[in-house]
Amino acid sequence: MQDLHGGNIYRLRREGKGEILDYSSNINPFGIPKSFKELVISEFDNLEKYPDIEYIELREELGKYNGVGFKNIIVGNGATEILFLYAKSVKAKKVVIVSPTFAEYERAFKNTECLIEHYLLEESKEFKFDMDEFLEKNYQADVVVLCNPNNPTGKFISLEDIKKLNENLKKKGTKLLIDEAFIEFVEGWQEKTAINLKDENIFVVRALTKFFAVPGIRFGYGVGWNSEFMEKIWNFKEPWSVNTFAELSGKTMIKDSEYIKMSENWIKNEKKWFFERLSTLKNIKVYKTETNFILLKLRNIEAKRLRELLIEKGILIRDASNFKGLDSSYIRLAIKNRENNFFVFEKLKELVDNESI
Amino acid sequence: MQDLHGGNIYRLRREGKGEILDYSSNINPFGIPKSFKELVISEFDNLEKYPDIEYIELREELGKYNGVGFKNIIVGNGATEILFLYAKSVKAKKVVIVSPTFAEYERAFKNTECLIEHYLLEESKEFKFDMDEFLEKNYQADVVVLCNPNNPTGKFISLEDIKKLNENLKKKGTKLLIDEAFIEFVEGWQEKTAINLKDENIFVVRALTKFFAVPGIRFGYGVGWNSEFMEKIWNFKEPWSVNTFAELSGKTMIKDSEYIKMSENWIKNEKKWFFERLSTLKNIKVYKTETNFILLKLRNIEAKRLRELLIEKGILIRDASNFKGLDSSYIRLAIKNRENNFFVFEKLKELVDNESI
Repeated sequence: MQDLHGGNIYRLRREGKGEILDYSSNINPFGIPKSFKELVISEFDNLEKYPDIEYIELREELGKYNGVGFKNIIVGNGATEILFLYAKSVKAKKVVIVSPTFAEYERAFKNTECLIEHYLLEESKEFKFDMDEFLEKNYQADVVVLCNPNNPTGKFISLEDIKKLNENLKKKGTKLLIDEAFIEFVEGWQEKTAINLKDENIFVVRALTKFFAVPGIRFGYGVGWNSEFMEKIWNFKEPWSVNTFAELSGKTMIKDSEYIKMSENWIKNEKKWFFERLSTLKNIKVYKTETNFILLKLRNIEAKRLRELLIEKGILIRDASNFKGLDSSYIRLAIKNRENNFFVFEKLKELVDNESI
Repeated sequence: MQDLHGGNIYRLRREGKGEILDYSSNINPFGIPKSFKELVISEFDNLEKYPDIEYIELREELGKYNGVGFKNIIVGNGATEILFLYAKSVKAKKVVIVSPTFAEYERAFKNTECLIEHYLLEESKEFKFDMDEFLEKNYQADVVVLCNPNNPTGKFISLEDIKKLNENLKKKGTKLLIDEAFIEFVEGWQEKTAINLKDENIFVVRALTKFFAVPGIRFGYGVGWNSEFMEKIWNFKEPWSVNTFAELSGKTMIKDSEYIKMSENWIKNEKKWFFERLSTLKNIKVYKTETNFILLKLRNIEAKRLRELLIEKGILIRDASNFKGLDSSYIRLAIKNRENNFFVFEKLKELVDNESI
């Protein structure tokens, strides 16, 4: 399990590598909203009580944030719990995953012993989702899984296309699962989320992890409109899986409009800047991104080797070769603040535009 | 799900009942160890990193606390996650649960669609586990589940008996799952835990929740010696289910020897005092306990009615009638500090020794 993901800074530390600039996990560089720390201190003694097993207040707040009712919301221990619960509840016989993408979809459905098929996005199309081509395949499946914006390609499917896709799938009895863990990094995301469709055939997964920089807190949620299915998913859920701190984070961070605004402005500018700067490197192909990470294809060095060289320079990148549909020439970089991005750019330039590698 | 457990103070609050003395959940009244709060503040920014997906340091500390290696330990989001993982991994066709007991064992195994049989402890024996009678039943099962000390009866099975039981079960290919969530409240528990047996046929579940008064933190762990099985259980596990705060709690609280000593002394005296005091009530039968809660049988009022009357007095008790094998005459009380215990005793006396009910 531990080799499926980026960011294993702990193993590096155990190997004596010391502190490192982590470009392998895609976390908002502004760090944890300050309002949250104060709240944790003042509400600390709440740990002596069980969390509300129904999480009503928390779900109400998330409902307001997303323009839906609390009954449309299920909360979990990271988006991961929600994904695994969805897979258990839907009892699919066949699932199509649009890949390359986050590895946990496959793990979640594998646990339920269903058939998994990968629809592979093509490099020749810069990994853009080609709706017409996908529909031509005419998959007979119970669920189609999409990550939107997609990890690791950074591409985003418009709401219009999601709607068209969903209408098509619905006719065939195929449900649509959309992971929007990174959506807050997409410009104008409030207008573009699939939550706006409020459709019974769709289930949307969200998390605080990336945008609010709290991978340590483990908080995610799911949004659905099929009340029978929502009940089923609650029945599979283990009680109290969201701890008191995670509950607090969910209630407060989404209301920190200053933090949200600041982060939206930063990513809008920085993804443009980083893309343009990286595009000047002659031995790297850069794929345009709509979110806070960026996929790169290396022309003259293997991802694994570059990762090792960069660790020596104090930078950890994501070797993306184990994503289904990618190969040993791909890496993924987080987008952080200008200073760090510049530093990473400089080191890459030294290493990959140097013919003597 | 929400009706299976005690302690739903949130629902009462939503119903306008205000703050209440919670005798329905069995939490150490000393509250959260102070050392932990300081640590949370100083380590707060660690939330910006994912927890170690392998939780090596944490497992090493727990290993030391229990005299085993870190490979014998799996950590989880409360004991509940461990129970559910065990049930998924063991793939039992038939399970015997020694009841009345904690409801989540049944839920965990039901999720795997196995056959569940309850071995019912008898009131005539004060709910003590009768080893010879149990062995005579000669169950053909894949797993026997024991809670030790048992919730809600408060009875504890000696290590000698656990050993005898395990030897018998092992011959038949039946595994033994022991939940020791409350063991630290048992006098001399260090000598009495099943972990001392270090047997491949046994899997022990533990939690910080009760003894360290942190139900809000969600931290539990499992201890096993069958390396193949331990690997299987890790494969079913969702990544990062223990958040950074829970990880910190696991690393520190178990080293707080002052807190541990103080709590051991308190429960040793208080369970005796509370038992003796409650035993003076003529309309209540009190069952002797070896842990921090106490089962009572009401002779002249229904549990549900008494619960309602006590809520009006500001006390929440656990109506124990929904435990398999109990009925509407049973309640369970936590044991807290002397002042509160006395208050609860007085209110009970007023209500149940008053013939005009």
